[in-house]
Amino acid sequence: MKCKKCGSKASVNMRQHKLALCKDHYLEWIPEQTERFIKKYDMFRREEKILVAVSGGKDSLSLWDILQRLGYQADGLYIGLGIEGTPYAVQGRSRDVPLERLYSAESHRLAEKFASERGLKLHVVDIQQEYGQPIPMLAESSHRGQGKPCAVCGLVKRHVMNRIARDLGYDALATGHNLDDEVAVLFGNTLQWAGNFLLRQSPVLPSTSGLARKVKPLCRFYEREMAAYALLRGIEYIYEECPFAEGSTSIYYKELLNRLETDKPGSKLTFYLRFLEAREAGLFAAAPASAPDLHPCPNCGQPTSTDDLCSFCRMIAKANAITSKPLP
Amino acid sequence: MKCKKCGSKASVNMRQHKLALCKDHYLEWIPEQTERFIKKYDMFRREEKILVAVSGGKDSLSLWDILQRLGYQADGLYIGLGIEGTPYAVQGRSRDVPLERLYSAESHRLAEKFASERGLKLHVVDIQQEYGQPIPMLAESSHRGQGKPCAVCGLVKRHVMNRIARDLGYDALATGHNLDDEVAVLFGNTLQWAGNFLLRQSPVLPSTSGLARKVKPLCRFYEREMAAYALLRGIEYIYEECPFAEGSTSIYYKELLNRLETDKPGSKLTFYLRFLEAREAGLFAAAPASAPDLHPCPNCGQPTSTDDLCSFCRMIAKANAITSKPLP
Repeated sequence: MKCKKCGSKASVNMRQHKLALCKDHYLEWIPEQTERFIKKYDMFRREEKILVAVSGGKDSLSLWDILQRLGYQADGLYIGLGIEGTPYAVQGRSRDVPLERLYSAESHRLAEKFASERGLKLHVVDIQQEYGQPIPMLAESSHRGQGKPCAVCGLVKRHVMNRIARDLGYDALATGHNLDDEVAVLFGNTLQWAGNFLLRQSPVLPSTSGLARKVKPLCRFYEREMAAYALLRGIEYIYEECPFAEGSTSIYYKELLNRLETDKPGSKLTFYLRFLEAREAGLFAAAPASAPDLHPCPNCGQPTSTDDLCSFCRMIAKANAITSKPLP
Repeated sequence: MKCKKCGSKASVNMRQHKLALCKDHYLEWIPEQTERFIKKYDMFRREEKILVAVSGGKDSLSLWDILQRLGYQADGLYIGLGIEGTPYAVQGRSRDVPLERLYSAESHRLAEKFASERGLKLHVVDIQQEYGQPIPMLAESSHRGQGKPCAVCGLVKRHVMNRIARDLGYDALATGHNLDDEVAVLFGNTLQWAGNFLLRQSPVLPSTSGLARKVKPLCRFYEREMAAYALLRGIEYIYEECPFAEGSTSIYYKELLNRLETDKPGSKLTFYLRFLEAREAGLFAAAPASAPDLHPCPNCGQPTSTDDLCSFCRMIAKANAITSKPLP
């Protein structure tokens, strides 16, 4: 297989795009495409300040790398979740890095390493330090999530991302969701015909009630395209999934959709793009006028549909009441 | 596993309904449920005349059996497609039936046998006799379907069912589509976000432009539930799929959805019912006001969106022009 642009040996063959590229042209193609998506979905402009949510994985580090290469003002936010998991060997380690590390420690190390090597600014929020307990303990002490901390983790991450973006005046909050992530979510919501979620899932969520705009510049790249980018760019990233992700419904859907994609290449991209097009063309009725009014949470100030504390502050209050720590 | 109603040994265990039943109670439960669906979706009433499209398969013969048991006035329509396929051994054959038969011949024999044993009226339309050529030849000579006659077969069956229902004054046309059929179609249309099809797929399509109402009384039964019904009722049916169905997209989707159902029992039913509920609740915008006007086809009188011959008559004209036979 030869590179379509220069005829040299191709490094990446994208069957779904009928496109093969050599390393150099692939590493140009990804940012070019990203720039196209940023413009197409009107995500942000060069004079705006972007906060990239960085997990230490291939997608978020690649996103940060791409935005820097494209000349955007993008700082990072790393949230220390305090997830330990089973120790594992580190992907792409050099000889002087210990063989085994824990999930959050390793993802933190990789995010810091990436930022310092490139002179980028990384904000770090450590959940245990700020809210008294790491994620797995918060989930347990607030009795949420039926043995899995994933729901609490999502709640905490959304809250912290919104807080930092607002407090530090960022215009947009960028996450590294790739096509496989978006398609798995869309598939789950479609199997349930979850109207509210179908109306909201988008490459861009406009700023509302004082929250920063949310954008997903990688939403049209397949996961394997981002893995190839990180590898060819020499980005050191955490290879393992979060230890709590094992057995999750979203991973199950990803496997089912991978089977579909293997048998019918391009299915995921078609499913996602036709969804966006059909919604844009008016397939869905507008959301009912009775959408709940949002009020600022009396504790944190973030918008909530209740008249009392928001879900996040209620969860923290419950977790800390049990462990006798005051509300921050 | 015991029957939920009488405690005797269960014959059918429906994991997705958390219900196990013995043979007798299962054979009562299926018509009770069918009656419930007929009423729920307002399909037809006892004073109306129903035409059941009978293929000789388990679903359509079971549907006819159930409607008879429930006291509805249901006649059958068998359409002889002239499909040969590979000879195969006959399911449930008795000693005096030849070991090997061809697809259409065998399905015709089984439909006739079912009707005559129960004193039911069966209309028979033979495609070759009426339109000059059997389905596979029509597809070839009209250059439709890229080597597969399935599109032409669907077009012909819809035309003939509409014609017989209209000419003989039936109020409703009932087909044996089961849940697996409906879910495979819904899944395909959803993967493509095919809005027009999503707006139309329904247990009942009301009568329009002089066409009979179309109803699918079995649309909430899993395929395996209908297979169990046919088996326990001793209905002799054609077991094989149409030889042209092999490798079709709908069979591929059925296999993928079977995997989902195995891993997450009830997924198919949830996907289908939530879709109907969400649409009923107004998830989709109404069809655009610019829906094409329908005119009667100058040859057959059935509604068409063109000003000229309908698709069916154009196909027949093309096929017969090539083989030098006049338009019927």
